[in-house]
Amino acid sequence: MSDTNLSAVLFKAKDLQLVERPICEPGKGEVQLCMQKVGICGSDVHYWQEGRIGDRFVVQAPMLLGHECSATVTKVGDGVTHPKSVGDRVAIEPHGVCRKCDACKTGRYNLCPDVFFLATPPDSGALARYHVHGADFVFKLPDNVSFEEGALIEPLSVGLHACRRARLSMGHRVLVCGAGPIGLCAMLSAKAFGAAAVCVTDIDSGRLEFAKKLGASHTLLIEKGQTEEQVAAKVAETLGAAPDRTIECSGAQFSVNLGVYATKPGGVFVIVGHGPSKVEFPVVSLVAKEIAILGSFRYINTWQTAIDMISCGKINVAPLVTHRFTLEDTLAAFETARSGVGVKVMIDCAKHEKK
Amino acid sequence: MSDTNLSAVLFKAKDLQLVERPICEPGKGEVQLCMQKVGICGSDVHYWQEGRIGDRFVVQAPMLLGHECSATVTKVGDGVTHPKSVGDRVAIEPHGVCRKCDACKTGRYNLCPDVFFLATPPDSGALARYHVHGADFVFKLPDNVSFEEGALIEPLSVGLHACRRARLSMGHRVLVCGAGPIGLCAMLSAKAFGAAAVCVTDIDSGRLEFAKKLGASHTLLIEKGQTEEQVAAKVAETLGAAPDRTIECSGAQFSVNLGVYATKPGGVFVIVGHGPSKVEFPVVSLVAKEIAILGSFRYINTWQTAIDMISCGKINVAPLVTHRFTLEDTLAAFETARSGVGVKVMIDCAKHEKK
Amino acid sequence: MSDTNLSAVLFKAKDLQLVERPICEPGKGEVQLCMQKVGICGSDVHYWQEGRIGDRFVVQAPMLLGHECSATVTKVGDGVTHPKSVGDRVAIEPHGVCRKCDACKTGRYNLCPDVFFLATPPDSGALARYHVHGADFVFKLPDNVSFEEGALIEPLSVGLHACRRARLSMGHRVLVCGAGPIGLCAMLSAKAFGAAAVCVTDIDSGRLEFAKKLGASHTLLIEKGQTEEQVAAKVAETLGAAPDRTIECSGAQFSVNLGVYATKPGGVFVIVGHGPSKVEFPVVSLVAKEIAILGSFRYINTWQTAIDMISCGKINVAPLVTHRFTLEDTLAAFETARSGVGVKVMIDCAKHEKK
Amino acid sequence: MSDTNLSAVLFKAKDLQLVERPICEPGKGEVQLCMQKVGICGSDVHYWQEGRIGDRFVVQAPMLLGHECSATVTKVGDGVTHPKSVGDRVAIEPHGVCRKCDACKTGRYNLCPDVFFLATPPDSGALARYHVHGADFVFKLPDNVSFEEGALIEPLSVGLHACRRARLSMGHRVLVCGAGPIGLCAMLSAKAFGAAAVCVTDIDSGRLEFAKKLGASHTLLIEKGQTEEQVAAKVAETLGAAPDRTIECSGAQFSVNLGVYATKPGGVFVIVGHGPSKVEFPVVSLVAKEIAILGSFRYINTWQTAIDMISCGKINVAPLVTHRFTLEDTLAAFETARSGVGVKVMIDCAKHEKK
Repeated sequence: MSDTNLSAVLFKAKDLQLVERPICEPGKGEVQLCMQKVGICGSDVHYWQEGRIGDRFVVQAPMLLGHECSATVTKVGDGVTHPKSVGDRVAIEPHGVCRKCDACKTGRYNLCPDVFFLATPPDSGALARYHVHGADFVFKLPDNVSFEEGALIEPLSVGLHACRRARLSMGHRVLVCGAGPIGLCAMLSAKAFGAAAVCVTDIDSGRLEFAKKLGASHTLLIEKGQTEEQVAAKVAETLGAAPDRTIECSGAQFSVNLGVYATKPGGVFVIVGHGPSKVEFPVVSLVAKEIAILGSFRYINTWQTAIDMISCGKINVAPLVTHRFTLEDTLAAFETARSGVGVKVMIDCAKHEKK
Repeated sequence: MSDTNLSAVLFKAKDLQLVERPICEPGKGEVQLCMQKVGICGSDVHYWQEGRIGDRFVVQAPMLLGHECSATVTKVGDGVTHPKSVGDRVAIEPHGVCRKCDACKTGRYNLCPDVFFLATPPDSGALARYHVHGADFVFKLPDNVSFEEGALIEPLSVGLHACRRARLSMGHRVLVCGAGPIGLCAMLSAKAFGAAAVCVTDIDSGRLEFAKKLGASHTLLIEKGQTEEQVAAKVAETLGAAPDRTIECSGAQFSVNLGVYATKPGGVFVIVGHGPSKVEFPVVSLVAKEIAILGSFRYINTWQTAIDMISCGKINVAPLVTHRFTLEDTLAAFETARSGVGVKVMIDCAKHEKK
Repeated sequence: MSDTNLSAVLFKAKDLQLVERPICEPGKGEVQLCMQKVGICGSDVHYWQEGRIGDRFVVQAPMLLGHECSATVTKVGDGVTHPKSVGDRVAIEPHGVCRKCDACKTGRYNLCPDVFFLATPPDSGALARYHVHGADFVFKLPDNVSFEEGALIEPLSVGLHACRRARLSMGHRVLVCGAGPIGLCAMLSAKAFGAAAVCVTDIDSGRLEFAKKLGASHTLLIEKGQTEEQVAAKVAETLGAAPDRTIECSGAQFSVNLGVYATKPGGVFVIVGHGPSKVEFPVVSLVAKEIAILGSFRYINTWQTAIDMISCGKINVAPLVTHRFTLEDTLAAFETARSGVGVKVMIDCAKHEKK
Repeated sequence: MSDTNLSAVLFKAKDLQLVERPICEPGKGEVQLCMQKVGICGSDVHYWQEGRIGDRFVVQAPMLLGHECSATVTKVGDGVTHPKSVGDRVAIEPHGVCRKCDACKTGRYNLCPDVFFLATPPDSGALARYHVHGADFVFKLPDNVSFEEGALIEPLSVGLHACRRARLSMGHRVLVCGAGPIGLCAMLSAKAFGAAAVCVTDIDSGRLEFAKKLGASHTLLIEKGQTEEQVAAKVAETLGAAPDRTIECSGAQFSVNLGVYATKPGGVFVIVGHGPSKVEFPVVSLVAKEIAILGSFRYINTWQTAIDMISCGKINVAPLVTHRFTLEDTLAAFETARSGVGVKVMIDCAKHEKK
């Protein structure tokens, strides 16, 4: 292959450059991929701007960004049985795991202590022309699922996993806190799990309008000066009853408290959002209402299901993409993502013939 | 109330008559209902024709038929807080339970040994002008849910409960055996639980056409001479993979075997259908595939959920009604149900002004 | 019955008096009980001293204390089938519930909004010579279970319910925070659920010695100046690995944080203890480790199981009783409980013949 | 290593020979083991006598028998982190799995379609002086767990997995059908899960005596001429109530029917035993009682838990071994196993110095 591998490398905070790198060959059990679409996640922007997320994830060596991706298979390593064919259109799950620890063997590989995860230091990402990945974390896309939809499976999976953690089921009333990309994906997921009604909250009315257009049955603007108990009462009024399940995607302390107050006794409150490392919450209500608060981290075994649901038309993620750039314009794409306009910024990594 | 209570009384096998009875007053915790719509169930026809179902349920005294019902509240007994208003439009759950046994206290009141259940000997039904029922088994219908839909919540609930038993969830591939009213309700339920695909089987192609029109993503005709293993292979081919969940609603030994062969390893196979009291099944496959076979009996706590799902438009049961009669024409209604034409025969119990 | 009903009535904070009251007759579904043993709970002492617990439970009218009780049946009301015989030795579950709400019908009657609960204002307790109670919340004791053991089923049930909430199972490593009566009962329960090891923590070394003697496989003294992370590391070292389940019974903010840090990734952390109404906790760790924090409130359906387990010798609660008084000496009993010596103070309510 | 590898090779039905083979070197992720104790399983005897089990498992090439084993580590391959030290005393889980399929990634690797399983054609066993095995399916034994106990973890694991499948929990009444080694291990497991009472059935009173001595709280002899319903009634009488859980380990059609009749409504019936490929069972009772019948196949993630439980003294498997032989006397060991005397025949594979 005579191509070069144009890559978006983050050298350190605020220093993101497009550089040419060699193209790697796939090892045993791996495939080489020609990247197609890569979405920008809030964490990508955060690493770019801050060089770190908390104390645990610090950029200490140059790394690629990007973990929401689709691609085409260009080479297949030894021992790969699926997907096996060069040319297959695929979506990429960012994981690589040890497969041998307790977490892996009990089907919770998102908790593997030796996990590799795209674009999470010290692990590099896939925002480049080419990328090599473990074949069993690469999933074939049917013809009716686009590359953009393929890339959007990553944020959708965060929502699907949160709903699974919540044991969200048919007929539930659901509260989703936060109308960013993850909140929107949680809302789409909750509907796919059969929720009778989904109320999305946010402090930004524009985001709520988008949520409504995307399919939220109800929205609720959080206004300054309201207490969590007041908003909890409004949520119950809006949904017709207290929510069976709450999914917190905002990272705000307000929402962590809202979740405990709003969720129905015996209900489940899943926290996805990352905000301050510690928050105060009403433990007495938790006990008296027998609420379950569940942390939800990344995802496990969601890609094939997401593909099936997108392909059969039951989940429509396509409208999430509001801005598009080419790989060559990566910096402009990141500036757009940072500005907060729109919802999802998508980068086209394919080499396009100059006309 | 000067009305009389026209009632469809089954005196013994083949002897179903319309008779006038007094109207009962509601006791403590009860409501008096003016019946609106009552659907005919296969069991109603069976009691009418045979006077029994198996050795356990035998008609030994005159009883009313009918347990799929909607009504309006005409009187409210002492201690009733909900639904409280005369004039409320309601759907009726056929249960009355002891509330004190282990089954009741653990939330599985369908297994209460002292259960009362409409139109199941020795308990009488509700196919009459008036009926008195426990208030907490009567559920208010919103304006946008019709009386017919209210009556259809009963068969729908059988499907919803089967899906709950199955822990059916988003993205599952589902096999439903049998395209009668219960199979159709199981299919509608599976879709509401987020199934990615539902394949319905039957030996009658007309029923399968109806299933398809009602929303089944796939159908499969069981033809003479096929083995269960052959049909299992066809199911996997049709669905793109072996079903995660199978719901047997046909009562046929063939389907009990099909379920074990067809369901994916680690999957769940729920049996709703009543057929022969004993069937032969492939226990070795059950063990080697770690299949779970779950009996599903009636339902628990489905009415409010069903109302919510019908009201928000996520489940559409209305097309199930193919034939309509008045209470005065009950016998014609039963003849139609017995003939097997159509899907659901609905009886209008309201007193209509003569024009 | 010519007996009078000597009762320990709390008129207001610090005003607990023994008074004679009439003996009530059992209504429908009720039994009249001659009380035998009543244990003093921390909440009894708290109501006595403060007249309230938080803002929700305030003593506004004279009420009896006592909700850990055993008795003999003296009269049986109409419609009671079980326990039916005068003279039956029984243990009492403090609940009375509506049986008709969603919580009751789904088997979570501890969340019934119309709950009656002994000795929780506005509901009166059972520390008296006689008490009338719902028959289905009264459970027959086998001959080999003493009245004291019968009374101890109440605190034991708190532990059993917490373990059920935790889905605690065979082989788990378990951390129990707090070595008071509830912590001790949680430890006994965890062992009965098959825990391979149970580590109990406390700030009082005397309590830990008691825990060890009662059967804790490990104990850990929380010392001043240690951080939650440091203690979490010690817990893992003590147990050989991080605990699969943590049960917090201390009500301390320290323990709520310890639970999140100590529990193994993917593990479950149940909170039973009541402390400050709000606490700060490490939400980022909760998410990254996918911890589940579950509130556990009172209990459901534990009495018969507890009786079976005590009767077969698998749980031994008897050593919990460290001090004994007669009903006539109730005030001395409460003073002892308030002083914090010993573990469980037990009051003998039976009328003893004067010698 | 100058040792040779004495091995028990099954060439074809009835042709089991001790032959010398070369000693293999451990590959990446593998360890070389000096075998210590290997128990004989019914399946080993069956392959030896019949050359097959059903149509699926047929001996078509020479293979070693033996899959219940303990060993010491003699060499460690590349990339092995645990157990890492030569000299470690270990128990062996017979599995090798693909780690990449849906079954593996969801934590149900016992259902991996590409599974390797010791002594199950076409996969060879470990009844030899030396054996090479995947390191993550080898578990270090603490000093207080003997090699015999280490070998017995395999049948124990079948029981533990069945109890996990059954969600067997504290206080359950349990019926175990069959008092062979697997039934006995299921009984020991049920007790470790906190069962209040375990009733073991068999047609052989000697086996029941052994079960009683090993810890069964109750036993019941199945006698000729009794119907399944009659025995079900006796089981309820024996246990004081119908069993919450039934575990079938006999492989008899009688027991499959007994399980459905005996298990309490809403209960769980796990089938472990392999008998005829098809059996007739009372499907109507299954539905009306909402029984769950669950197949249980081998085990997943039980070894470490079993080691912990044996080490802490909560499970005592040691008395299961009734006969002992050396590797050189393998044929005599198999003859003993075939004769049906005793419970577990254990072979010592270590090379003993001649005195």
